[in-house]
Amino acid sequence: MRARLEAGQQEIVAAARRVMLRCDELARVTASETGIERVYLSPEHARANRLAAEWMRELGMSTRQDAAGNLVGRLDAADPEAPALMIGSHLDTVLDAGRYDGMLGVLAALEVVRLLREPAGDAHRSPFRFAIEVVAFWDEEGTRFGKALLGSSAAAGTWDDRWWALQDAEGVSVRQAFLEFGLDPARIAEAARRPEQLVGYLEAHIEQGPELHRRGESLAVVSSIASARRFQLVVEGEARHAGGTPYDMRRDALLGASEAALAVERLCRAEHHIIGTVGQLEAFPGAMNVVPGEARFSLDLRGELDGHRDEVWSALSLELDAIMGRRGLRWRADEVHNAAAVGCAPLLQDVVREGIATTLAPGADAPATLFSPAGHDGMSIGAITDIGMLFLRNPDGISHHPDEDVSTEDVAHGLRALAESVLHLAAERG
Amino acid sequence: MRARLEAGQQEIVAAARRVMLRCDELARVTASETGIERVYLSPEHARANRLAAEWMRELGMSTRQDAAGNLVGRLDAADPEAPALMIGSHLDTVLDAGRYDGMLGVLAALEVVRLLREPAGDAHRSPFRFAIEVVAFWDEEGTRFGKALLGSSAAAGTWDDRWWALQDAEGVSVRQAFLEFGLDPARIAEAARRPEQLVGYLEAHIEQGPELHRRGESLAVVSSIASARRFQLVVEGEARHAGGTPYDMRRDALLGASEAALAVERLCRAEHHIIGTVGQLEAFPGAMNVVPGEARFSLDLRGELDGHRDEVWSALSLELDAIMGRRGLRWRADEVHNAAAVGCAPLLQDVVREGIATTLAPGADAPATLFSPAGHDGMSIGAITDIGMLFLRNPDGISHHPDEDVSTEDVAHGLRALAESVLHLAAERG
Repeated sequence: MRARLEAGQQEIVAAARRVMLRCDELARVTASETGIERVYLSPEHARANRLAAEWMRELGMSTRQDAAGNLVGRLDAADPEAPALMIGSHLDTVLDAGRYDGMLGVLAALEVVRLLREPAGDAHRSPFRFAIEVVAFWDEEGTRFGKALLGSSAAAGTWDDRWWALQDAEGVSVRQAFLEFGLDPARIAEAARRPEQLVGYLEAHIEQGPELHRRGESLAVVSSIASARRFQLVVEGEARHAGGTPYDMRRDALLGASEAALAVERLCRAEHHIIGTVGQLEAFPGAMNVVPGEARFSLDLRGELDGHRDEVWSALSLELDAIMGRRGLRWRADEVHNAAAVGCAPLLQDVVREGIATTLAPGADAPATLFSPAGHDGMSIGAITDIGMLFLRNPDGISHHPDEDVSTEDVAHGLRALAESVLHLAAERG
Repeated sequence: MRARLEAGQQEIVAAARRVMLRCDELARVTASETGIERVYLSPEHARANRLAAEWMRELGMSTRQDAAGNLVGRLDAADPEAPALMIGSHLDTVLDAGRYDGMLGVLAALEVVRLLREPAGDAHRSPFRFAIEVVAFWDEEGTRFGKALLGSSAAAGTWDDRWWALQDAEGVSVRQAFLEFGLDPARIAEAARRPEQLVGYLEAHIEQGPELHRRGESLAVVSSIASARRFQLVVEGEARHAGGTPYDMRRDALLGASEAALAVERLCRAEHHIIGTVGQLEAFPGAMNVVPGEARFSLDLRGELDGHRDEVWSALSLELDAIMGRRGLRWRADEVHNAAAVGCAPLLQDVVREGIATTLAPGADAPATLFSPAGHDGMSIGAITDIGMLFLRNPDGISHHPDEDVSTEDVAHGLRALAESVLHLAAERG
């Protein structure tokens, strides 16, 4: 076992370039001709897994697709029963996505394995007392079924049987989609990992925010993944003829929903570290000349602290009561996702911090420590093992958008930091 | 020719009951299992035309489907070249529609023909010096292609060749839909009627508003059909990650559209006889965890006076500039419909008023005269002949909704009034 990364800067930059090229290659695995769209249990899911599995095998890893469609590559330790350090992220995307959110973390994990393998040793063996796994989770985003973290929840053994009935926009259920993809719903429990099989979970991810860009720094230690609650809201009024119905007789569901969306912005904006977003909104029946009798919209509500976030939801509920009451409308909310904030383990925060420090000039300030307002697979995996995360600078903070970007230089810093983190962890564990 | 309707009250009530039963029968010609949906150039269009054509032939009328899919039944006068009085309305519906808007006017026209035919004369002949046509127009509502009054525009010879490219929600163009329905787009001009072929156009329609209900009266004379402008608006911002993008970096298109919808309500509500409705709104990309980069919505803007309506649109445009400017958004509007207000001809207003008067108790007030904030086929037909309209009470003013209603008693009053109007017109024309 080495105490220090032997790879030279040239080797690391070459690895960073490979990460960038492979992000481009994955971007071509898309269901959309005009952008990147790669959702859970789709033909693109299968294609992306095949491609990533090839890259894993190039590194001497054994590969398997688990019972939830996640892809796992593994280098055993000398003791094949030794627990594994998982490094990874996800390969699914939002609609019209960027090419780095998720994919970067999977490809970076592969390059870290390449940098850490004993050049003189057995290429099929982990150089540490623990095994190394590279994992590519599926449906971190929840794009297809509205429920995020499906794959990593299966891996954490927290799959909820109610999810089988969730449907996509075409009315296909999770259960049907499993069968069509070639997975057996009855075997979902086999995807679950046990705590004793794992050393921990490390993930590199673009920040999806502007903080590192504003600070002019490449990398940050993540302290915790903030918690999100997601709701589907329905406003009910009365559909009426647009021409003949005076304003005093209207119960316009869309205007109620519009006021609600603006109230989300107003209430959340007034708070520190609370973010609420209405990403979906639609009016029904949806004709130009009919006052909408129903409107449906989504709410994604995040906060650094669960209690604070829940207080804001309570305040918002009162505000919605007032808005809808004034307009003679009814409203209801179905909670479709509720995750508690998950802290990164102190040890893994420390090794990531030490890893980042190796990329800094002597005398530089300590690396930034940020919390993540965005959800990540670590939120699920935190239920069974310690998690640690590293953020890479995201120019201008643009994510979930085709303009999402990261620089090759920052990726090189990230690869060095992540590889050094693993070495520090190995040293800590003796 | 008779000067006064010979039919007894019993016969008229039986006719009103037949109208109600046939409205129920047409309601079963629907594309939706859960409500009424009968759109232009659909299988339901063909089925409804076949059904109505049978009813026309029962009355001895000749029938034809014109080059735009409108159904026309005709009783010639003794002189087969004599011009025709058209009586009718439309058979297409909005989504999740009621069963009277349009259909009632077509079925009432049929019963008026039945009441006016010479019992002793030739059942296949108009009892007047003019022919009588019953017409069932298609796509008065504009449900499928976003453009209203397609069929009656074709009949008026004002079809616009740009409409061929309009598409429905599935991307099917008007041209394709014509071909799939079995109509030849090249023959559209054959649907056009010439002014010299027509005596005028009469239509009975539910009010689609609460005014008669509030007054406690059954019927009203229509003075004019107010004008509508319709727009499809697009707001462009930037799609970004919902968790990682602070409010000061967001350019949320949906929030801009929400403010715009509320501004429509605020500005129109402040004016007399101006109605603006946002009936459609959708956010893109439409994921729960993505700040919407684009929002699209419709605007239907009506006013009693064209000039006033246009002033409100100008004020609204300035307001949208301000809203979108504050939020860093761009907006644009495509005008998809622009109709001028159309007045009912004084003579036809008079004969309708006299017709309604025959249904009132001696000494009752003169019938109400209302303008129509809702559009009707008469707006198109007014380009080639005089138009007259009669409104029937619409309980609580609910229209474009499954709860849309009319009473059998009011329909009986309406049938008598409409038949008497035709007799008065025949007398006026000598």
